[in-house]
This record gives sequence, structure tokens and C-alpha cells, in this order.
Amino acid sequence: MPRLSEVIAALENLWPAERAESWDAVGTVVGDPGQEVSRVLFAVDPVQEIVEEAVKLGADLLVTHHPLYLRGTTTVAATTFKGRVVHTLIKNDIALLVAHTNADTADPGVSDALAGALDLRVVGPLVPDPSDGEGRRGLGRVCELDHPVTVRELAARAAARLPATAQGIRVAGDPEALVRTVAVSGGSGDSLFEQVRAAGVDAFLTADLRHHPASEFMAAGAPRPLALLDAAHWATEWPWCELAATQLDEISDRRGWDLRVHVSRTVTDPWTAHVASDATSSSTGAPN
Amino acid sequence: MPRLSEVIAALENLWPAERAESWDAVGTVVGDPGQEVSRVLFAVDPVQEIVEEAVKLGADLLVTHHPLYLRGTTTVAATTFKGRVVHTLIKNDIALLVAHTNADTADPGVSDALAGALDLRVVGPLVPDPSDGEGRRGLGRVCELDHPVTVRELAARAAARLPATAQGIRVAGDPEALVRTVAVSGGSGDSLFEQVRAAGVDAFLTADLRHHPASEFMAAGAPRPLALLDAAHWATEWPWCELAATQLDEISDRRGWDLRVHVSRTVTDPWTAHVASDATSSSTGAPN
Amino acid sequence: MPRLSEVIAALENLWPAERAESWDAVGTVVGDPGQEVSRVLFAVDPVQEIVEEAVKLGADLLVTHHPLYLRGTTTVAATTFKGRVVHTLIKNDIALLVAHTNADTADPGVSDALAGALDLRVVGPLVPDPSDGEGRRGLGRVCELDHPVTVRELAARAAARLPATAQGIRVAGDPEALVRTVAVSGGSGDSLFEQVRAAGVDAFLTADLRHHPASEFMAAGAPRPLALLDAAHWATEWPWCELAATQLDEISDRRGWDLRVHVSRTVTDPWTAHVASDATSSSTGAPN
Amino acid sequence: MPRLSEVIAALENLWPAERAESWDAVGTVVGDPGQEVSRVLFAVDPVQEIVEEAVKLGADLLVTHHPLYLRGTTTVAATTFKGRVVHTLIKNDIALLVAHTNADTADPGVSDALAGALDLRVVGPLVPDPSDGEGRRGLGRVCELDHPVTVRELAARAAARLPATAQGIRVAGDPEALVRTVAVSGGSGDSLFEQVRAAGVDAFLTADLRHHPASEFMAAGAPRPLALLDAAHWATEWPWCELAATQLDEISDRRGWDLRVHVSRTVTDPWTAHVASDATSSSTGAPN
Amino acid sequence: MPRLSEVIAALENLWPAERAESWDAVGTVVGDPGQEVSRVLFAVDPVQEIVEEAVKLGADLLVTHHPLYLRGTTTVAATTFKGRVVHTLIKNDIALLVAHTNADTADPGVSDALAGALDLRVVGPLVPDPSDGEGRRGLGRVCELDHPVTVRELAARAAARLPATAQGIRVAGDPEALVRTVAVSGGSGDSLFEQVRAAGVDAFLTADLRHHPASEFMAAGAPRPLALLDAAHWATEWPWCELAATQLDEISDRRGWDLRVHVSRTVTDPWTAHVASDATSSSTGAPN
Amino acid sequence: MPRLSEVIAALENLWPAERAESWDAVGTVVGDPGQEVSRVLFAVDPVQEIVEEAVKLGADLLVTHHPLYLRGTTTVAATTFKGRVVHTLIKNDIALLVAHTNADTADPGVSDALAGALDLRVVGPLVPDPSDGEGRRGLGRVCELDHPVTVRELAARAAARLPATAQGIRVAGDPEALVRTVAVSGGSGDSLFEQVRAAGVDAFLTADLRHHPASEFMAAGAPRPLALLDAAHWATEWPWCELAATQLDEISDRRGWDLRVHVSRTVTDPWTAHVASDATSSSTGAPN
Repeated sequence: MPRLSEVIAALENLWPAERAESWDAVGTVVGDPGQEVSRVLFAVDPVQEIVEEAVKLGADLLVTHHPLYLRGTTTVAATTFKGRVVHTLIKNDIALLVAHTNADTADPGVSDALAGALDLRVVGPLVPDPSDGEGRRGLGRVCELDHPVTVRELAARAAARLPATAQGIRVAGDPEALVRTVAVSGGSGDSLFEQVRAAGVDAFLTADLRHHPASEFMAAGAPRPLALLDAAHWATEWPWCELAATQLDEISDRRGWDLRVHVSRTVTDPWTAHVASDATSSSTGAPN
Repeated sequence: MPRLSEVIAALENLWPAERAESWDAVGTVVGDPGQEVSRVLFAVDPVQEIVEEAVKLGADLLVTHHPLYLRGTTTVAATTFKGRVVHTLIKNDIALLVAHTNADTADPGVSDALAGALDLRVVGPLVPDPSDGEGRRGLGRVCELDHPVTVRELAARAAARLPATAQGIRVAGDPEALVRTVAVSGGSGDSLFEQVRAAGVDAFLTADLRHHPASEFMAAGAPRPLALLDAAHWATEWPWCELAATQLDEISDRRGWDLRVHVSRTVTDPWTAHVASDATSSSTGAPN
Repeated sequence: MPRLSEVIAALENLWPAERAESWDAVGTVVGDPGQEVSRVLFAVDPVQEIVEEAVKLGADLLVTHHPLYLRGTTTVAATTFKGRVVHTLIKNDIALLVAHTNADTADPGVSDALAGALDLRVVGPLVPDPSDGEGRRGLGRVCELDHPVTVRELAARAAARLPATAQGIRVAGDPEALVRTVAVSGGSGDSLFEQVRAAGVDAFLTADLRHHPASEFMAAGAPRPLALLDAAHWATEWPWCELAATQLDEISDRRGWDLRVHVSRTVTDPWTAHVASDATSSSTGAPN
Repeated sequence: MPRLSEVIAALENLWPAERAESWDAVGTVVGDPGQEVSRVLFAVDPVQEIVEEAVKLGADLLVTHHPLYLRGTTTVAATTFKGRVVHTLIKNDIALLVAHTNADTADPGVSDALAGALDLRVVGPLVPDPSDGEGRRGLGRVCELDHPVTVRELAARAAARLPATAQGIRVAGDPEALVRTVAVSGGSGDSLFEQVRAAGVDAFLTADLRHHPASEFMAAGAPRPLALLDAAHWATEWPWCELAATQLDEISDRRGWDLRVHVSRTVTDPWTAHVASDATSSSTGAPN
Repeated sequence: MPRLSEVIAALENLWPAERAESWDAVGTVVGDPGQEVSRVLFAVDPVQEIVEEAVKLGADLLVTHHPLYLRGTTTVAATTFKGRVVHTLIKNDIALLVAHTNADTADPGVSDALAGALDLRVVGPLVPDPSDGEGRRGLGRVCELDHPVTVRELAARAAARLPATAQGIRVAGDPEALVRTVAVSGGSGDSLFEQVRAAGVDAFLTADLRHHPASEFMAAGAPRPLALLDAAHWATEWPWCELAATQLDEISDRRGWDLRVHVSRTVTDPWTAHVASDATSSSTGAPN
Repeated sequence: MPRLSEVIAALENLWPAERAESWDAVGTVVGDPGQEVSRVLFAVDPVQEIVEEAVKLGADLLVTHHPLYLRGTTTVAATTFKGRVVHTLIKNDIALLVAHTNADTADPGVSDALAGALDLRVVGPLVPDPSDGEGRRGLGRVCELDHPVTVRELAARAAARLPATAQGIRVAGDPEALVRTVAVSGGSGDSLFEQVRAAGVDAFLTADLRHHPASEFMAAGAPRPLALLDAAHWATEWPWCELAATQLDEISDRRGWDLRVHVSRTVTDPWTAHVASDATSSSTGAPN
């Protein structure tokens, strides 16, 4: 059985910590480098529900995409939910490794997994990492479709292929416009609008878009119309867990580690229900 | 017919500019204080589509909730959509007045209108303005329901009573939990989570919630369970337009101004369509 | 007739906006890129008096050296004089283009025009732009005189050749010293003292010098004596309007645009009168 | 004969150091508290020329309005002109005391002396010091004239009563407008424009005004027209030297110190000559 | 047996966390509020050696004066010594509570314990806490001696009464001067020099003094001579552990908790040996 | 006799000012470049005691390692001890030159002199200056011993070879461990711990180490054990005075200047006495 330090070294080789953004907090958060690892669980969020799944599973290592502590803490007391996560992990000898923006920009990375789930052909990164001479690493991906589809059809494909969430997919722009090229970026994408416009694509699929950025992006227009597709943040990043688990499986085979690698299917998206506006009934003077 | 300066003085009396947040940009953005005003249009967003509605209507004054320029600009050239808004307004002798955080915290204000649309009884502000001795002004409102309803029923009520939008209402927490008290805040509410928890309410209705704040808020738990309801940003603020129009109508009557006051029914929420996740069909290994 | 976007593209070619200082605000401030241009007015200051001259003249484009908004604004309401400028321009279909520090450092630029007005032979920039391989662009100019003159004679030449202003020319240093080389910089020059000293010139002609910088510069002395000549800020920049108008005339001829190009002769220097100290009469104990 | 510490204590009583602005550097700059003082020289600027006058005079203490070091220094080597000032003072046993913004806001202070030189009746401070319950201390002074005069006449009075300088007095606004009330502020006054407008005076007399602030102040207009008078910085502060010398004389008499108190008549304004624009001759296309 | 939350509430009552400096990090760092507490260990430093002592002792709670994490961390992985401390504590069900600047300024606090160890009579705080109306809380203590002793005698007393350390006591100033009043401050004291001088004491006993602050403090002199005594940082704070243990014992008795309270005698001062300069032998040209 | 400017030029050639840290303040602090120099004194601290030694000696130039003013001053009045230093120097025609971090990183520099005093063979700089292609300049030095010694023996050697001070040498770590390689850095060294660990040495000799950095450095451990030796700050820098005096002697000979060069033997370390902890007697419950 490999030691934690060996497994982490192998994973850090896929997503080197120094490739994370300067404000990010990646790497080993909990765990003793000398402990042995036989079972690994991948998930998006390091929340108590996931940690308890790891305990039940008998996992020795939990790998999540989101950091437990993005800003530094001076306490891990179990009076906070994050401190309780730390206590539960240590009491159960489970290490925690985070791969966040270093996994976003990796090749293959989070947006490759998202594109793959939607059968999109990746052309290259949306924001290329200048330190990558081959031009393959970076944030987001620019993709092509083999056959043009409408925005509505692309949204339906996302709804069908991504993990089911209460939120579903929101669309901005003309639902009947044709999409030949699309930019995708797992997680919050509203900081990438400028690059999306520069990429000249027909649509942008991402998550966590808010009124002001989305509204101004649509109002600013473009040389050609462009649609937005907004999925649940969690759903856009979950495909990466499967990708990463596959990568670790291959490493385990190659090295004869005999690891058991799992992907959590627990939905940690906060939204649990959705009610549609009913455009036919309105009891007030509102334009409902 | 009143002059612009007189109408603006009357409206500034409702929402004094000095009560706006220090980072906000409210007040008169376009217009000549000496021009006459006979027709006024209220809307949420100062976008080109609304400005053209004002032109067609023959309005002399457009009052919006959102600022045109929240950050300072050094150009109003019509090469940008905001510059085109300025050109269209000035060419058509239409003034623009913004009432943003000064309207949010007014008594009555944006969240009073939101509570009113949902038949909620306002108990007081969620974040009281310390300069208001009477304790009525401030951000958000804490409300009571005459009869308890489930979270799902409250969401359905919001869907029915607020203007219809493609996004609908998202719910976090147990949809079947009972709600007796609810905090509401028009627009983006994720900066108010601490005060919501302190208020001891059963639910919080607001807009523009993102994965990380919402997820951490739910994970942090509370002395008692608490649900989140997330509506379209635009829809939560639109009821204020009706409220403000009514306020101006009364002023006009009282002063004999004979103003024609309108509320725009154009939906400027960016989302135009929604596709639900179909939990029954999944073509990948995702937990869909 | 060319469109505004074409005329501005031609002028931006002379003074590319990206060559302006990072704190500056240059480029198109008002105007619709699609409007046609047949008449252009050049001036130093975008004040109401100049805008009204443009209206009377029937100009479609006003080009000024000074920015209208150097710091960003969130309102163009006509309650401020700058807002009134914006309203008057848009109501009269007049665009406004600003060329400020990008014109200062251009080749030829503001200080070339100043040197030309005084019959000074330009040797090179005072502060070369490091991005210009040919060493011709930059702030200020170092110049030679064909025949040495006294500081007083040089001041008299400046008084005679620059537009007349109430302020006249102030001199620091020995008025009878001989000047063979002189640095010139249109507008406020007190940030350039270090480079002037390094240039080893006999005199520095600029504007807006204040007591402390000028006094410390003279007190610090130098390997050789050096005189300061301080003219009206406006007067040192006005010659550029004639230069720029000539440049646009040539472009218009070359492209067959048939533009009518004008230079405003309105004095927008704030000083309207000057009273000399009378060294012979003193009614107090002052050293008058 | 009093010790330096005693004389300084008496002067600090007139202008307590803690009343200086936080960015200012006032108080004793050079000198040994135990040395004796018999002769004192007052001047505006601590430059070498003034220090040599103090040496010739046999002064033990030089009091200046302007600081020697406004920003901190880590060297007083005589390789700089300020270091040479320090060496000359110490070698000749001359102390240096600075009273700058603490003298500006004193009662009586720099602007009282300026008003007195022009026979203006002081009504109160332009910017009252909130810590002065009597409302007498503060920056600048608001003054009344016994008989209204034109702006031009007021400028002529300033030219006649203030120490003669090469620069003379510059006027902005209508020279023939009548002045009944005037704000005065010795030294650079362009940071006080807002308060001047609020004071409702007819004119503002100060120094070191530059194109942009003065131009925007005049363009912004006012409920009533307002003129600017710009004198030499040094000349507006020199009257304070006479005032302060008189104050020290009285203290000396009262305490039987028998001090010899002098005021320097050396002009340390940097401007040595002035050439007027000749509006009748113009050799170029300029509007001269 | 009390729960951790009860014990911590009792201790927070002695040293409320909100009385800590804003840059400090106090309170519960590790532990589950619901766990039971029967044995408590007090120590200065939360280092591995102390944690292992707690494990051997069977302690449920470790209370230290120094924070484990003064700056926030985003990882507690056992690859760092602090992460190993966290792992060891959690694996062994030991909670960690920090009382740092809130204990320094408490009444009684760290410097009271230091004064008590030296038989000094406390007069009051050196830097009174302005929020304490009784004037008892604050940093450091001003103390009196019943009988004057020399500086050397006071240093010998400190060496004898404080825990033995390799460093001993360093003295600055005249060792034979008499001390009647002394300021004491446990831990690093060089930020308190200004207040020490203002207190008018004869000596200052603290720790961690460095060359530049100490040298400048002695060079600056004072109305009367003043000596410095510099002990090991750890030794000046250790007496507080005994004080705090006694306080908790009393609480335990009063509440019938039957706690076992211990004070660690492990020396965690880093210095393990000391070699004196031998003034009689010198092999170089040094002034040894 | 050379002029001050010539002597300083020669010394600046050894330690160019531009090689000092950006926060440092080196170069000529007092003195007239034209004065003649015949006698020079080297010392560590520019304090009054040293200046009076220079006066008695008849020195024309004092060269110190520590700056007089590290932060800028706006006054040199003799009311402060630094101002008195300036007055004494100028009254006695003594110049002051500071060589601080530019001497630390010079080749040879402060740590070379320290290594030399201890018979350590310098291998290279601890923190190489990246601008030195030869890799000889930089902070600190990594050294080898010809024959391994114990940490205790190395401390004893430092005590014997460095100037005698009351503090002596403090040791952290195992006193009996063998030392083959050692890093040395004159003055405060706690900012260099990371580089010391990276250098893989057995010990680090420096000064002014405080509890927290030293304690955390020892707790963090290393691939191999590492000892700290802490001497008096002054004592670690004094050897440089002898080195620098020798360098100036050679220059003087080569140029025929006939300078008299002295090194001060006055101990300006603030510590005047030391009392060891007596581990055998303890009157309290402390672990003494």
C-alpha cells in the first residue's frame, strides 16, 4: 500500500500546486504524510456530508475541488462546521487534498471534463496559461460542435448530461439561435466575459452568473449575438471528479498500488427545489 | 407643468441621496434642471430597451433603481451601450434619475414593496439604519405570515406574485419545512447572511445567490433550520417601481402637477429560457 | 463626407490613445461613431464658451487638448458645467475628442508646436519615450537657438510669439544671462525639473510653476546657472491646435474628405487682467 | 539674556505645534536648547541667502514660515543646499524655528497680517478650526471693505501694499466688478475653492493658482460672479513676518529680555522679471 | 464532569476574547464543545513537546499563552510541526485554548504574576486599558519595592525567582543604581519604551530586547537614569501559568467540577546553553 | 591631504550606496565635500559617546555601520540625542559616513570579517546577490571548519574571539552536536532562517534572535539537527570596523594620502551586566 506522501506526489504531478492562482489554497489540508492509503474518494465540496460518506466508505484520502479554508483560519475548533470537518477527518485517519485552480487550468482539467460530458470538441483554452508553450493549459475551453444546435437544444443537452440539480439550466439570449462554437468554464464564470467575447464564440456555458454582469454583458452586445447558459456550479465541476478518479486509477495500475478509487454521487449543490414562474396566472399588477 | 428640479426635489425627499451607501451613485444622471416634466416612467434597469420605451411613451423623466454608471466614466461616447443610452436620453430631452440603495433602505422601500407583493406583514428592517430613531429604515425586512406555509408553498407564492421570469424560484433547505417568519431583501442578498441568522427567521427570500456563500450558509447550520429562496434579481426589485409610481402619483395630485406616471412592464432580467434537469434520463456516469 | 469613426481613426493614428499616461483620459468623450463630419474645431479647453463657438460654427467635431473628465463621473446632469457641456454637444450633434498626454509626447507634438512658435530648433525630447526606437517621441523638447539671446530677450520673444494673455511671462534667474539651449514643455512643467537639470540647458520655458518647486529648483543650483520662464498654461499649448489643424487638413486633402478645419482663437486662460507691483511707491513697512 | 528654550516656549505659545496640519513639519529644526538668544531674524524661506543674512546680522535665532524639511531626510550633508543651510546655521550658532500651518491658523495669523496690509476688516476665518470654541482660529480670513472697490482697484491696492515682486497681481473674472467682501489666504490657496464659494464673497486673494483649478473654478460659476486675485506666494506671507516680529518684541519687553528683533527684506520669491504680452504685435497666426 | 464548553466559558470569563488585540488569535483552537473535561494542563508554548506531555498526563484540555496560529493557515496537514500538533491533539481528544493578549491585560494578568514572582508591589497598569473604568486592566505593571535594591540585586532576584533558563538576565545601565520603582511586562517589551519613560520608573524588566531599540532607548536618556533588565521571554510568562491554574482550581472547587489542574514545568525557551565572554583572554585585535 | 569628497568616493567604491537595501539610509550624513581629511575613526554605532571619542581624537571623518537616521527626520535640533550628534559633528568639522547593508553584502563584507574573527573558511554568501555574476557578494556567509567542533566549543570560540560583552553567547539546540559547516550573519539574523535551513549547515551564528522566531525555527526541525548561536549584535559587527580600516589604510598608502585610521574600542552594546540563573536555588513553585 502506498503512503499518503506517495499518492499526493502522484496527484500533485497532475495538478502542480504552483499552478494555482496566488489567492487560492490548494494541496494537503489534513493528513499525515506517513499514513497508508488504500481507498480514495473524489468530490466537489469538503462538507460534513461528504466527509461522513468517506468515513462510511473507509476512505483514507478525500480529494475535493473546493478548498476547505480559502482564507486562513486560526482555529479548527469543532464549534464551526469546518472545524468539525477537520476533527472528523483526523479522528478517522482520512487525509484531505484540494485541487482547485490548479485543476481548472490543467490539461486535462475541469473544463475538459465539462466539455467531454457534453460531447463538445475542445479546440483550446479560453484563457491560455502563458507559461505553457504548447498552448493547452489555461482557464475554460473553447469548443466546437460537430453539428450546429440551437441554444435551447444545447441547454437541453446540458440538462441531460450533467448531474441532475434542482436549478436546471438558465439561458440568456435568443433560445433559437444556432450554436457552432461554445466556450465552457466550470464554476463561476463571470470574470471571463471579456475573453469570451474575444473568442468569437456563439455561446458561453458556465455557472453562478449574477444579474449585473450578465445583464451588462448582454446589453453590451457584440459583433455577433451570443448566448449564456448558466448551470449549477456544482454540476459543472462534478464531471472533473470522474476524470480525476480515472487518472488516479491509471496511476494506481501502473504502480501496482491496488487503490480503490470512488466518486461521490452526493449532490452538494445547495438548491433542493425549483418552482417555475407561471406566466398565465398573476394576482397583482405585476407584469407576471 | 413642474420643472425637472421640482420633481427631483420631491423624489429626493422620499429617498435622500445622502442615505445611499458611500460606494453607490444615485441622483440625477442626465437632464437639465430647467426642463419641464409631464410624463414619468419607472423601471429597474437603465438599458437601451427601456430608454426606447421612454422615447415612444414621450416621457420626460426616467427613474430607475439601478445606476447607469456605478463606477465613474470619462466618456459617454455612443461606442458603448451606456454612452448610447446617454445620447438617446439627451437627444430626446429625457432626464434620468437613479434611486438605488437610498430606495432600498427607505420607509417604505424596495423590500417593503417585495413583502407587499407576497402578502407578508413587515415587522421591521433586517439591518436597521442606526441614524433612524424610529427603527423603520434599513436594508431588508423581517416579516411574519398570518398562517404558516411550507417553504415550497412560499416559493410557489413568490412564483405567482412576482413578475414572471424564465428563472423561476430556487429553494435551498427542506421544501416541506414550515415558515412562520421570513426575511426578504430585493436584489443580491448574500452579504446579509449573518444578519439573517441573527434574526432567527425560518426563511430568507432574495436573489443572485452563488454556490459558495449559499453552500457555506447552509453547511454552517443554525439553532434552527432555515431555508433560502432565490428569485430573479429583477423580479424582486420590480414591485418597488409600482410603489414609487404610486408615491409620485400622490405627490402629483397634492401639488396639482397633473403628471402621467407609468411603470415599465418590459422584463430586463437577462434570462430568457430555462431547462429543467430531467432526473429520469442520464446518458453518462453522472449522478443525473 | 467621412463618418466620425473614420476621422477619429485618422487622428488616433497621429496620437494613439495607448501612448497617453495611465492616469489620463483621452479619446472620444461624446459622439456617435456613425455620424458624418464636415467641420472640425480645435481648442485647448472643453469649456462651455468653446462649445458654443462650435455650435455657432456648425462644427460636427470638437478636438481639445484638455480632458473634459480627467476623473470618472457618474453623472452628466446639466446641473454642473461639465454636464452642460455634454448636453450642449449631444443636442447639437457635436462629437468631442481629447488628445492630451498622447499629443504631448507625439512627434510632432505639443512642445514641437511651442518650440516652432518661438523659432527654436528642436534637438530631441526632454524625456524620451523608451518605446520609441528612433528617440523622437517624449515629453518636452530640448532646443537650440541659432544666435544666443539673453533670458530677457527670450522672454520677450515668448511674449510676442505666443497668444497674448493677461499674465505675460515670468522669469526666474538672471535676466541678462545668455541662452544658447532651452528646454520647453507645454503646460505644467514642474515635474520635469530633474530632467531639465540633467539636460544641461540654459533655460526652461513652461507654465504653472509654483513657489515651492521653483524656489527649491533655483536654490538647489546647478553646475551652471539656469533660468525659468513661466508663461500662461493655455498659451503654451495653443500652438498645438494650429499644428494639429494643419495635420488634419493634410489628411483631409489626401483622402478627399473636404473637411473644414478651424482653430479657436478664444482665450480660455482664466487670467483677465494683470497689475504690476510698483517698486517706487509703498505705503507700509513692507520691502515694496 | 534668555535661553533658546525660553524664547521657543514663548513663540510656541503663539503658534502651538500641535495645531499644525498632520503632514506639516514645524518647531525647532536646528539649535541647542541651552544656547542664549539676543538677536532674532524673521523671514519667509529658510534658504542660504537668508541664512547668510542672519550670519551677517549676528542673529542667534532664525524664524521662518516655510519648513526646511517638509519630508524627512536621512542626511544633512552639505552636498545639498538644505544640508549647507544646516551646516551654516550650526557653525554660526544660529537656531532655526519653523511656524507654518500653526501660524496660518493662529489668531492673529498669516491671513490676518495679509488682510491688515490691505486695510481689510477681518470678519472671521474662512475655514474655522473646529477646536476653537471662539471661532477665531482657522485657515484664511473672510473680510469686508469699508467702501466697495472694483476688482481692478483691489488688485492695484494689493500691488501697492504688498512687497514688490516681479510677478505682480493676476486677476481672473470681470476686472470692473464691485467687491464688498473678499476672502484672503496667504500662500497656495487652490485647495480652498469650495469654502470660498460657500462663503459667498465677491473675490478671493491668494497665490500659486494653476490653470486647471482656476479655470474649473471660474467655469463652474456661482450664484454670483466671483473674482480671483493671484499674488506672489512669498508676498502674501511676508506681512506675517512683521506681525510675528511685533509679537516677539512685546514678549521681549514684557519679560525684560532686551531682544533685538529683525524682519528680512530680502525677496526670496523666485521670479526676478516679468514681460507683458503685447497685444498689438503678433508675428504668427496666433490670436496674440 | 463539566463539558469543554462550560470550562471554556469559565476561562473566557477571566480573559474575555474581545479584550485581545485586534491582530491576536485567542480562544478555542482545537476541541469539540461537547467533550468532557477532567484534567487540564497550563503551559506557555503550544509545541509538540508540551502536547506530548498532555497526552502522557491524560489531559483533556491544554491552555497555552502563545497562539498556535497567529496568522491564519489554510492547512493543518502533519507535514508542518503545527499541523502535527493539531493531529496529535485531535487524535488524543485534547482541546487547545489560547489566552494571549487578553491574559496580558487581565486583572490579574501575566505581568501581575511576573511582579508577584519577584515580590514587587503592583501600583497599576503601565498602559491602562481605557475601557476599564477602575484603571486596573492593561499592558504591563508599574511596581514599587518595599526596600530599594540595586539594579544588580534586582537582576539577581529575577534570576533566582523566575524559572531557570540558559540565558539568565541581561542588564543595561548602571548595575549599581538604586531601584525604588520598576515597570514589568511579560514577553517582548520593546514597544513599551515610550510609556516606560513616561512612568518615571527606575527600571524596566521585560524580554526579547534587541540592539537598536535598547541602544536608542539608553542613548535617548531621560530626566533620570533608567535600567533595563532582559530575561528569557518564556521565563517572564511562566508565572502566569501558575496564576491561571490557581484561578481554575478555585472555579473548579466552587462549581464542584473536581478538575485536576497541572502546570507544565518543561522549559520551552529555545536557549539551551550560555557561554560568557571571558574578558581576560583575547586572541585577536578585538577590544575583548 | 585629500578632500572629504575624495575619501568618500574611495570608500563608496568599496561599498557602493546603490547596493544598499531600498529601505536603508547609507552614504554621507554630515560634512562638507570640500573639507580636508587627515584622520578617520571607524565604529559600529553613531552615538554621542563615539562622537566625543572622534572629537578627542581629532578625527575629520567618522565611518559607522549603523545609520544615524534610518527613517527620515525633519529636525536636527539638539533636543534629541541624534540632533546633538549632528551639532557636535558639525561644530567640530567631523563628517559622518554610513556603510550599512551595502557593507553587509560587500566582498569582503561584514560577515567575512565575522567569519575571519572565528577562523572559519568562507565558502560563499548565504543569500547571493543576484546581480553579482561571480557569486561572491550577498548577505551572510556559509563557512566550513577545518576540524569539526561541538556547538559548545564553537560558542566558546565566539566568546573568546569576538569583543567581550556582558551578554556572552546563547546557544539553542544540542550543545554537544558536531559542527562541520556554519552560516554566519553579522547583526539581526532572524529573517534568514529559511535560507539557513536551505543551506544545509550544522549551525547558524548571528544576533538579536527573539523567542518566537527562534522557537518556531527549532520546533520546525529540519532534515538534520541545527544549532543557533546568538551573540551581541554589536560584537558580531565590530570585526568589520577592523576590516574596513585596513581597506582604507591600503587605499591611503596607494594614493599617498597619509591618513591616520583608527578603530574605536568603545563597547556600545547596551548590555552592561549579566546574571546567570542559578538552577540550584529556587524560592517559588517555579521550575527554577
